[in-house]
Amino acid sequence: MAKKNKQFVEKVTAMEDDFAQWYTDVVKQADLVDYGPVRGSMIIRPEGYAIWENIRDILDAKIKETGHENMYFPLFIPESMLQKEKDHIEGFAPEVAWVTHGGDEALQERLVVRPTSEVLFAEHYAKIIHSYRDLPKLYNQWSNVVRWEKTTRPFLRSLEFLWQEGHTCHATEEDAAKETRQMLDVYASVFEDYMAIPVLKGKKTEKEKFAGASYTLTIESLMHDGKALQAGTSHHLGTGFAEAFDIRFSNEAGELQPVHQTSWGFTTRSIGAMIMVHGDNCGLVVPPKIAAKQVMIVPVAQHKEGVLDKAYQLKEQLGSIARVDIDASDKMPGWKFNEYEMKGVPIRLEIGPKDIEKGQAVLVRRDTGEKLFTPIDELETAIPELLEDIQRSLFEKAMKHREEKTSVATTMEEFKNSLEQNPGFIKAMWCGDQQCEDQIKEETTATSRCIPFEQEKVADTCVCCQKQAKELVYWAKAY
Amino acid sequence: MAKKNKQFVEKVTAMEDDFAQWYTDVVKQADLVDYGPVRGSMIIRPEGYAIWENIRDILDAKIKETGHENMYFPLFIPESMLQKEKDHIEGFAPEVAWVTHGGDEALQERLVVRPTSEVLFAEHYAKIIHSYRDLPKLYNQWSNVVRWEKTTRPFLRSLEFLWQEGHTCHATEEDAAKETRQMLDVYASVFEDYMAIPVLKGKKTEKEKFAGASYTLTIESLMHDGKALQAGTSHHLGTGFAEAFDIRFSNEAGELQPVHQTSWGFTTRSIGAMIMVHGDNCGLVVPPKIAAKQVMIVPVAQHKEGVLDKAYQLKEQLGSIARVDIDASDKMPGWKFNEYEMKGVPIRLEIGPKDIEKGQAVLVRRDTGEKLFTPIDELETAIPELLEDIQRSLFEKAMKHREEKTSVATTMEEFKNSLEQNPGFIKAMWCGDQQCEDQIKEETTATSRCIPFEQEKVADTCVCCQKQAKELVYWAKAY
Ligand SMILES: [Zn+2]
Ligand SMILES: [Zn+2]
Repeated sequence: MAKKNKQFVEKVTAMEDDFAQWYTDVVKQADLVDYGPVRGSMIIRPEGYAIWENIRDILDAKIKETGHENMYFPLFIPESMLQKEKDHIEGFAPEVAWVTHGGDEALQERLVVRPTSEVLFAEHYAKIIHSYRDLPKLYNQWSNVVRWEKTTRPFLRSLEFLWQEGHTCHATEEDAAKETRQMLDVYASVFEDYMAIPVLKGKKTEKEKFAGASYTLTIESLMHDGKALQAGTSHHLGTGFAEAFDIRFSNEAGELQPVHQTSWGFTTRSIGAMIMVHGDNCGLVVPPKIAAKQVMIVPVAQHKEGVLDKAYQLKEQLGSIARVDIDASDKMPGWKFNEYEMKGVPIRLEIGPKDIEKGQAVLVRRDTGEKLFTPIDELETAIPELLEDIQRSLFEKAMKHREEKTSVATTMEEFKNSLEQNPGFIKAMWCGDQQCEDQIKEETTATSRCIPFEQEKVADTCVCCQKQAKELVYWAKAY
Repeated sequence: MAKKNKQFVEKVTAMEDDFAQWYTDVVKQADLVDYGPVRGSMIIRPEGYAIWENIRDILDAKIKETGHENMYFPLFIPESMLQKEKDHIEGFAPEVAWVTHGGDEALQERLVVRPTSEVLFAEHYAKIIHSYRDLPKLYNQWSNVVRWEKTTRPFLRSLEFLWQEGHTCHATEEDAAKETRQMLDVYASVFEDYMAIPVLKGKKTEKEKFAGASYTLTIESLMHDGKALQAGTSHHLGTGFAEAFDIRFSNEAGELQPVHQTSWGFTTRSIGAMIMVHGDNCGLVVPPKIAAKQVMIVPVAQHKEGVLDKAYQLKEQLGSIARVDIDASDKMPGWKFNEYEMKGVPIRLEIGPKDIEKGQAVLVRRDTGEKLFTPIDELETAIPELLEDIQRSLFEKAMKHREEKTSVATTMEEFKNSLEQNPGFIKAMWCGDQQCEDQIKEETTATSRCIPFEQEKVADTCVCCQKQAKELVYWAKAY
């Protein structure tokens, strides 16, 4: 038994030894993904997909509450159409997949497998928008997209991923700006309130903005290893696509005007963030609100009379207050303990003959390992409270981690030392010049993550050139 | 006002004049779809997508209730992988899209954009199934698929469509057979109990079965014009893919055995069926259970004091008992009446100054046009009852239509006469020989739709060759 457990746990590399390997091990051992037949593609297995379904349903409800409608655009984009907006095609051309044949025929024009759908939405909007009465148009799509990435990792960067992409049209620049910010806040809420991941909100620099946008807003999160991950982006597209695709409306004065657009996306990458923020050396830790199963009942000495009956009865009884499952297979309890720790189920409920005698069950928290001997007739109040407490603790722990891993640098010397000694976010002033941004990246491999909405003045001069600083920027090495 | 209405209605061709054109007109005028930039591709607009979301959620719940788990496989399949099962590749090769380049690079092996995912599931199953303890495996995927069709029509046949595809593995042939039938019944329930479309259940002939299956079960529905539409299929795959992909398990005796598989799919085609079964010359008629909006409130003389207040108050009040919306735009009531008739909203609720005076509202049924003057304080009971009645009436009407359009033929003469004079299903005996099936198709363009589970003996001899008959078959011209 002990040996078996050990063998099982040994399959996961310790995060301290090799974080990248730990990630790969967990993703596989927790049955989240398998590799697909094409290099860099992934199969999202039921354990992983159930988490995505929960996240998707939460976000979808918020997208609808804020007045958006879902629709669906085709997968293929004619090459000529992608080329209408110049910055956009330059940004995406190196990483798209090309369809050249349909059945036995060579196509007259190559088709791109959508890497994103701005141009499809733009062409449609040009057809259906005529008057200010048609605005705003608030559309969203859930779909798969393809990016021909050279180096790939499950969830973080793969040939194909799942996402939602919102695309909206507005009568004024200000309305589009409000929308851009609103959807960033929606994303932040999903991350913080459901996935228990604190995020920084801010604006991307010109260098890091989306190809074709006026500006890009972003939420940035910090992983356990001190690297940052861009958790979601919301773009103010200005009138670039409107001009290129002729999306115009007559305003109340009867003048023809281009619409102001936004687009915003949230992807399966978020699952990668969840793994790298909350996971530990025993495997996944899934926040209760997005966990497929919140409580796993493991009967102990289940061959003894009454144990299985009681376990199933508890499953029945608790089913209305939480997502509860039972493992009544003939595997050993120790194997099961490890298995559901690996899968990150928030609470394990153990019930054996002695527990039944005492009228109790043992609740074990996945996040802390703490055991709570709980009277059976208190479970219905204890479990929801415990789930809430786990949810809150995970967020607080992640926030504390981020705070500990955030340094201030006023010189490049300090910048490099911090990155070395306490890898994480570096808060440093910037002059606004892309040369400095490039130089910082070259010298440190850290990139500008965002210009935070909550500005502070940690120095008067740019961390790089020491000329007058314009704004505070968060920097980090990133996924 | 009258002129405006007329112009609007004139946009839809009468079904009696040209059913195909009527269909195309309705699909466009009801804002269900727009055409995509690539020939044969479609944009599913919010009105259409909302119906799909309702159908999808109903079916997804049933798929989960029957023990299946959702997951997600990649879009691309290497050519060599598709070729492993010979019948399967022969069936699909002529109608797939080929990816030949990723970024700037020519790929070493061409990739197929999935037309269906049997081979992807098969390869994965070979990796994860080892013992009888691993069975059954009951997986499902919601995704887009691509078929390079030559002639296309929105929903019915398009370059890309949305669907779910279930793929399961079982220890025995019988378990797979039970699953195949169970999922057909699930599909039949979605059609009959939610979409109000009666279906025939049966088995496909060898000629019409899925490429690579042992046999295919099907549900067949009859459109308004007397053509049949295959509404969903469920395949018993036998051990063909298991042999080709080496999906084996050790049974309780320790012997290595191939698994028995099924696959089953339900697509956005179902929306095409809904349109062609229930629609009329005023546009769509959407069954209440799948309607995005079940009640549309249209204020009459809304500039008069108190009308809009009352209308919004009703929306608020009725929001908990039905999916209610309001159109308080400055368009004329007559325009609105036509618009929501076109969109098939089951109930229109009119409220004007005189109604308010009388303490009533006018409920107008989309299916019959009947007006019901209903006291406002009875709306909360009247509306759910009316929705139920509309749902039931639509089913009964469709069933009556199917019965009227179903003929018996014992000779080819009768067969052709029926097809001509009363196009619909033809019940005729068949000897089981594919030559007769081919000949019937050649002479009449009707195909075998299914060998119904509910067999009758309408003659002793084959309708075509007059040799001894084996079984009853339903025949029809089909979409
Ligand atoms: Zn500088
Ligand atoms: Zn015959």
